[in-house]
Amino acid sequence: MGNKLGEFGFIQEIKKQFSLDLPEGVEGIGDDCAIIPETDQHSLLVTTDMLIEDIHFLRSGILSQDLGYKSLAVNISDIAAMGGIPQFAFLSLAFPLDLENAWLESFISGFKDLASSTKIHLLGGDTNQSSHGITINVTLLGRIENKFIKRRSEAKQGDIVCVTDFLGDSAGGLKYILEKLPRDTDGHHLVKRHYRPQLALQEGQWLSRQTAVHAMMDVSDGIDSDLKRIMESSKCGVQIKIEDIPLSAALQRSAKVHGFDFLPLALAGGEDYCLLLTVDPRAYEELNKNFQLEFSHSLYPIGTIVEKELTYLKNGVPLKVKKKGFDHFRKADGH
Amino acid sequence: MGNKLGEFGFIQEIKKQFSLDLPEGVEGIGDDCAIIPETDQHSLLVTTDMLIEDIHFLRSGILSQDLGYKSLAVNISDIAAMGGIPQFAFLSLAFPLDLENAWLESFISGFKDLASSTKIHLLGGDTNQSSHGITINVTLLGRIENKFIKRRSEAKQGDIVCVTDFLGDSAGGLKYILEKLPRDTDGHHLVKRHYRPQLALQEGQWLSRQTAVHAMMDVSDGIDSDLKRIMESSKCGVQIKIEDIPLSAALQRSAKVHGFDFLPLALAGGEDYCLLLTVDPRAYEELNKNFQLEFSHSLYPIGTIVEKELTYLKNGVPLKVKKKGFDHFRKADGH
Repeated sequence: MGNKLGEFGFIQEIKKQFSLDLPEGVEGIGDDCAIIPETDQHSLLVTTDMLIEDIHFLRSGILSQDLGYKSLAVNISDIAAMGGIPQFAFLSLAFPLDLENAWLESFISGFKDLASSTKIHLLGGDTNQSSHGITINVTLLGRIENKFIKRRSEAKQGDIVCVTDFLGDSAGGLKYILEKLPRDTDGHHLVKRHYRPQLALQEGQWLSRQTAVHAMMDVSDGIDSDLKRIMESSKCGVQIKIEDIPLSAALQRSAKVHGFDFLPLALAGGEDYCLLLTVDPRAYEELNKNFQLEFSHSLYPIGTIVEKELTYLKNGVPLKVKKKGFDHFRKADGH
Repeated sequence: MGNKLGEFGFIQEIKKQFSLDLPEGVEGIGDDCAIIPETDQHSLLVTTDMLIEDIHFLRSGILSQDLGYKSLAVNISDIAAMGGIPQFAFLSLAFPLDLENAWLESFISGFKDLASSTKIHLLGGDTNQSSHGITINVTLLGRIENKFIKRRSEAKQGDIVCVTDFLGDSAGGLKYILEKLPRDTDGHHLVKRHYRPQLALQEGQWLSRQTAVHAMMDVSDGIDSDLKRIMESSKCGVQIKIEDIPLSAALQRSAKVHGFDFLPLALAGGEDYCLLLTVDPRAYEELNKNFQLEFSHSLYPIGTIVEKELTYLKNGVPLKVKKKGFDHFRKADGH
């Protein structure tokens, strides 16, 4: 353990201490969810996320209903990443005694909006006074058929790397919020993508049933960080074609109008909550055709699984990418 | 919802909103754990608890290894309360960047001590920077055979109310800590009971198999609060005989030496983490005999389930009990 522990290092240390002697079939730290077998056919998926005021959000910067929505959304995305069906949530809340009643009511209503539309039941939690600010912890349980579970560790050399949605919109929205950019139509769209991320829950369940899909995870920290997790778990490298990164028209127009670079946002902005997957190249065309029929848009191929290292190519030429890191543990950028 | 929400009121409101349309067999807010059926024979039990610096503990007042131990212990107690076997834990931690490495290492080692001795596997979590202080959230999953599940709602009139251990020791220990009383032998014992509560895990599993045991829960807030939860769930009242409250010699001697009243500690101090249960009076003697054979000490009968109200009797005379409340939500007494 270093003296200043990044999330990654601390988790590695805990993982080392706690991965021994797990019961058969149980998988702990190291993927989007833990896996706990329930029967020969089914497993439970479990994920948990903590959101902290002034670290993950500013109270003045997000409506409480959006925060309620988002605190559940980030967990749903982890279940989606493995192909599961989210079912039961547990919500722990700490807040100062002077927090307004209306704030709490809206928070719960935003949480409930998303819970209702995804058929998730809140089964428990803990509410507490805090001495400073608001802290939210959500634990989400889901279920999946064992044969459909997708992991980070199954990428194979030659696989096509793809994402299910545009990258960078959420980070673009955050830019509008933090830099107080005037909210034109595109700004409103991007900010909405930041506050109420679109989840790839149906896509995850559908993709989990395709044997051509090898590795899968959600994009929570930006593909630059998340690809490294696939590389580590699958012992491989990735080559990304910058020109293939899918970008929304809104983000591209906003970048032009407000004079910012969209590439760091798309690669390392994070909170996209779409899926990142690797696909058997021989089956890609057929898979993508069926995906399109199902979801009315294509997968976005952005690169290839290679032997080692993460390389970005722009029109075939290696590119050193300038990116703003997005390490939950070190950041204090207010979202 | 009131404007200053006690934990109880807020939970009631959330319960009302989220208890509709639960899948068959699923039980949510209202008992020590949520119940999620896994097969026809087995269910999953889930509980979650948040511990917050300066609300539930003072960093200067507890060793980090004890805090690690206790953050898991309070959750194990909830599983014990329903008769279950704890299995899988998820730990979310928020802490300031300047927190010493040694603090974290000890915290994890205390957590691991208890996890190892109770065969619990840590399967995941979340670590984050905090802007203020340390926040810990543990979610614990356990399993139980459906036919053995014990609830708060099964108390019947005439049942004998009992506890499995002395009451007030933990609160006595806290008194030593907060009032900086000199640590004589009794003080050391009580403080240890506060930092490393003895869990009634084996007792809970054994008691859950006895059909004579009707209602069961753990004593986390003190029996004065916890009895009210049984009363609410079982629609009944309770009559407690003050002279039957089991008290350790250490607590009684300490109270004499340091001149404090042990009764409020025993009734409302909380954090005892023994079990509170109600037993069919016709089967009590036989049950207690078998309990004694198994655990080398007796159950402690403290009263009777009656039609309504919580009454304390001292040698048959109703007594108005002076008690210091222990509402997690309102308190800021530093443990």
